[in-house]
Amino acid sequence: MKENRYDDDLFFEKYSQMERSKKGLEGAGEWQTLRPLMPDFKGKRVLDLGCGYGWHCIYAAQHGACRVKGIDLSEKMLERARREHAHPAVEYVRCAIEDVDEPDGSYDVVFSSLAFHYVEDYGQLVKRVCRMLDTGGVFLFSVEHPVFTAYGSQDWYYDADGSILHFPVDNYYYEGKRDAVFLGEKVVKYHRTLTTYVDTLLKNGFELTCLAEPKPPEDMLDLPGMKDEMRRPMMLILSARKV
Amino acid sequence: MKENRYDDDLFFEKYSQMERSKKGLEGAGEWQTLRPLMPDFKGKRVLDLGCGYGWHCIYAAQHGACRVKGIDLSEKMLERARREHAHPAVEYVRCAIEDVDEPDGSYDVVFSSLAFHYVEDYGQLVKRVCRMLDTGGVFLFSVEHPVFTAYGSQDWYYDADGSILHFPVDNYYYEGKRDAVFLGEKVVKYHRTLTTYVDTLLKNGFELTCLAEPKPPEDMLDLPGMKDEMRRPMMLILSARKV
Repeated sequence: MKENRYDDDLFFEKYSQMERSKKGLEGAGEWQTLRPLMPDFKGKRVLDLGCGYGWHCIYAAQHGACRVKGIDLSEKMLERARREHAHPAVEYVRCAIEDVDEPDGSYDVVFSSLAFHYVEDYGQLVKRVCRMLDTGGVFLFSVEHPVFTAYGSQDWYYDADGSILHFPVDNYYYEGKRDAVFLGEKVVKYHRTLTTYVDTLLKNGFELTCLAEPKPPEDMLDLPGMKDEMRRPMMLILSARKV
Repeated sequence: MKENRYDDDLFFEKYSQMERSKKGLEGAGEWQTLRPLMPDFKGKRVLDLGCGYGWHCIYAAQHGACRVKGIDLSEKMLERARREHAHPAVEYVRCAIEDVDEPDGSYDVVFSSLAFHYVEDYGQLVKRVCRMLDTGGVFLFSVEHPVFTAYGSQDWYYDADGSILHFPVDNYYYEGKRDAVFLGEKVVKYHRTLTTYVDTLLKNGFELTCLAEPKPPEDMLDLPGMKDEMRRPMMLILSARKV
């Protein structure tokens, strides 16, 4: 199912109030982990799957990418991307991640930030990305961590007084649809095991070059709720190379 | 700390009553996942770190390994290994995993089953394994899953009636010592993140060839408690090649 939650007015408004939406890359807790993993973009052809406001597209262009295509299903996202992150080398196109179809070997870098947990068929996606990448090309993406998606609600488990007890994991090996709550709204996400995320890459033409689980950077630990984020992993970043 | 719990009489007796201790590889829930990952042992020099009863050593020898060294800290384990799993190509040696020191490039396969969560310094271990392996050599090991080791007790979280609610995760990013309970006894284990397990390999001369999280095989799902094991990951298997 290709759900377009981000074109819902209320959801979009809430999303636009997040630190990452207002401050961009520097406002995203995972940026300090992700930035060193960004490939050399000089002269590269880049595809961003689920580009949102275009923060990463503009980053790639400003770091020398010769051509960047950002795709997203949300027209509201793309409007803002075109308005605020326009660049001669960047093109924003409305398209679902599942429907992307570009010529074989037409990209050097395929990037995606926190979007693949909305995609039902990860195996098909990996195969397609491999096909669209040139040999030696980089596939770098972040996704919600399997620990974070397994249970469903994505909320902590609390005691009677409302204090956090721990984070619940359940139904880990049952992959598929979860009714998650994000920004107080219901959103459909797809849970997959770590095995599926990593081994599908290894079995489909990729070599894994990095696995990282971003934790809150030291200088953000004093922000509200950030210390709790040392208690569970929320994101997984994988970097792979087409062999 | 090199803890030798397996030479404690009570602990050893309890361990010897486990299915995996009585039935060997076929009694271990992860064997159906692990077996296809076992390398071709023909003519190979094999080192087993934490060999226990020697089930995997004898498997390697029976599949053509020319020389197998199994090391373990527990004299009780080794006694039984020597008695029940003797083979002209297999040698059992008392040694802590942390103290193994063999010549550079002297092995083709380094194997370990569920032992590294007892080792405090994983980084040093990986470096040493890499050194002892020949180029192209295989490093295959299973370990307790970071989801399983993070909280500490390694027990489910129950409701007031004693029914399982979910599995708790906490303190994920705080690596180090945990006071775990195994077979009703206190055992010191070391929690590490998935990032540490995988990325340490990638940064120290290895290429990842497989990541697997064994789940209960279909034909074991009717055994007591096995269906619950679909709710959380307990083990992680990593296979890597020295490049």
